[in-house]
Amino acid sequence: MGGQPTVSDVADAAGVSRQTVSNVLNTPAIVRPETRERVEAAIRTLGYRPHASARRLRTQKSSTIGIRLDPLTQDGISGSVLDRFLHSLTEQADRKGLRVLLFTAAGPEDEIEQFRRLSDGADVDAFVLTSTFHGDPRTEWLIEHGQSFVTFGRPWGIDDMTDPLHLWVDVDGRAGLRDATRHFLDLGLRRIGYLGWPEGSGTGDDRRAGWLEAMRSARAVDEATLAVLEETAHDGVTFGAAAMRRLADRTEVDAVVCASDSLALGALTASGGRVPVIGYDDTPVAASLGFSSVRQPLDAVAAGVLDLLTGAHGGRVRPESGIDDPRHRLVAPRLVVREGGSLIGGR
Amino acid sequence: MGGQPTVSDVADAAGVSRQTVSNVLNTPAIVRPETRERVEAAIRTLGYRPHASARRLRTQKSSTIGIRLDPLTQDGISGSVLDRFLHSLTEQADRKGLRVLLFTAAGPEDEIEQFRRLSDGADVDAFVLTSTFHGDPRTEWLIEHGQSFVTFGRPWGIDDMTDPLHLWVDVDGRAGLRDATRHFLDLGLRRIGYLGWPEGSGTGDDRRAGWLEAMRSARAVDEATLAVLEETAHDGVTFGAAAMRRLADRTEVDAVVCASDSLALGALTASGGRVPVIGYDDTPVAASLGFSSVRQPLDAVAAGVLDLLTGAHGGRVRPESGIDDPRHRLVAPRLVVREGGSLIGGR
Repeated sequence: MGGQPTVSDVADAAGVSRQTVSNVLNTPAIVRPETRERVEAAIRTLGYRPHASARRLRTQKSSTIGIRLDPLTQDGISGSVLDRFLHSLTEQADRKGLRVLLFTAAGPEDEIEQFRRLSDGADVDAFVLTSTFHGDPRTEWLIEHGQSFVTFGRPWGIDDMTDPLHLWVDVDGRAGLRDATRHFLDLGLRRIGYLGWPEGSGTGDDRRAGWLEAMRSARAVDEATLAVLEETAHDGVTFGAAAMRRLADRTEVDAVVCASDSLALGALTASGGRVPVIGYDDTPVAASLGFSSVRQPLDAVAAGVLDLLTGAHGGRVRPESGIDDPRHRLVAPRLVVREGGSLIGGR
Repeated sequence: MGGQPTVSDVADAAGVSRQTVSNVLNTPAIVRPETRERVEAAIRTLGYRPHASARRLRTQKSSTIGIRLDPLTQDGISGSVLDRFLHSLTEQADRKGLRVLLFTAAGPEDEIEQFRRLSDGADVDAFVLTSTFHGDPRTEWLIEHGQSFVTFGRPWGIDDMTDPLHLWVDVDGRAGLRDATRHFLDLGLRRIGYLGWPEGSGTGDDRRAGWLEAMRSARAVDEATLAVLEETAHDGVTFGAAAMRRLADRTEVDAVVCASDSLALGALTASGGRVPVIGYDDTPVAASLGFSSVRQPLDAVAAGVLDLLTGAHGGRVRPESGIDDPRHRLVAPRLVVREGGSLIGGR
């Protein structure tokens, strides 16, 4: 490291947290006067100056957003969703004079190390996080260190997501599966199965809730049947096919809604294209094979992320600020209806 | 712009090109002494200093690579290749302490405008270009302005690509289609069709040459038959299906090799899975449907790009430098053989 003093150096010298240093620089009114003086003295002594590019974010002229590029999955079908989000984010950021800087990380701890390097070096002024999960240490670190950031994904596991500790944007997967299930109900189908992931994934549990809600409010089947109409599998075409065979061996199914296009493709191949399916993510695979899928509005997600980063919130939750704008955006997905996997199986 | 003087300001003041200013800064030995003195005087007068981050590239400590993120295509099947390349590039750049900065552009002229902004602001120290084409104005601009860059894609249209005006990495598509065709020949098939793009695309013509070469060297069919076994179409599943129907209506075909997975999927669906196909790019669609495809070794491409940017050449062709290392890398693709689209058509 060496060279320029950092926020950490100032925090150490003043005996306060990095968050406090950040508050002194950005919202001095909320810091107690004696603390503020101590921090300001440390800033003078060390000759610390907030980097030019970091200042740019605050004046909203030009700035750089850091985002981790997730490793490619073996499966590859659904991985493209985050790539599509990256395209939307980069295009819209460009129009606002913001740049997108990519980095990689082997896991959450490694990603935090990257946050540290990129924010200390003032290479990045704000972060966008994807693939959030229960007890995510990354958001904790960023809050503690006073960094501007927005997550694509909810802060799973808290009670009131409209009053979060950080800004977030997410897609309403529950609404997506509800719409998908209603589509089949409207066609007069009743025994609509659900192929989802094992319990415990926030995203998966949310999508499942949409299927349950639609089935119950339509009184499509009784509760005992509902329990039989559900199968879980890890994500993947082969796993989806196996789950579909278990489901079909056990009971009669009119149609199946799925937590992903991988599971949907598995279900399609296992049934030889005879049972209509709806997937999730509207991947190129769904489009090219012609089966229906729930499409995430990634342009709207990117717009929401940039809105929260550059708007009134400026990328941070400030409890005392009295900002009226909500701290999150929950955007509705759209069901893309297609003829139904006509390329699969005999015609 | 205002603020810091740029290379352009120095060039204007000294009455020379930006390339000459760049040469004075980087390879002063090749500049005539009186020109060098004039440029050095302008540098002093204007108070120009090469930006810290630009200097970092030359000392190879830490640096930023700019790359245009291509817009998503409607089709989406093959577009993922450049996304996969971006993943490889970012991962390998990260390991070398280099960052990847993304931008977008509506066309070549717009991309050049971005080059100008990013190099003037010293936000980016080197560029990576994708999707090169005949008479590409982007490479011309970058050479003229003394920028470090490497293209993923050959400088199509020059006679000797081993002596190029800029550094490049590409995949040997000709070898890929030759291997694909030989695979069918080795199975005893003879009437192997080719589905490609209309003439004039460097990439497409290169792939077609591989099919022709394999067919001719095996004396699989006579020249008249060879002409009948070829069909062209714009890229896309529907276009591929139509081309396959034209081909099958006209003549008997044992198997088909294609310039893309989109065309291959079209061919598969048009034949109901009865004619074996090999696609190109090994997309998630090929993997999930189980048909064979030629895989571009994108990790090797990314390694080659970084090698040319940070190695002896340092991202620039310097005719006088006597560097022994070749100015390009042509990497061989790999044929991924699968059972053959068993998910398509009746089983």
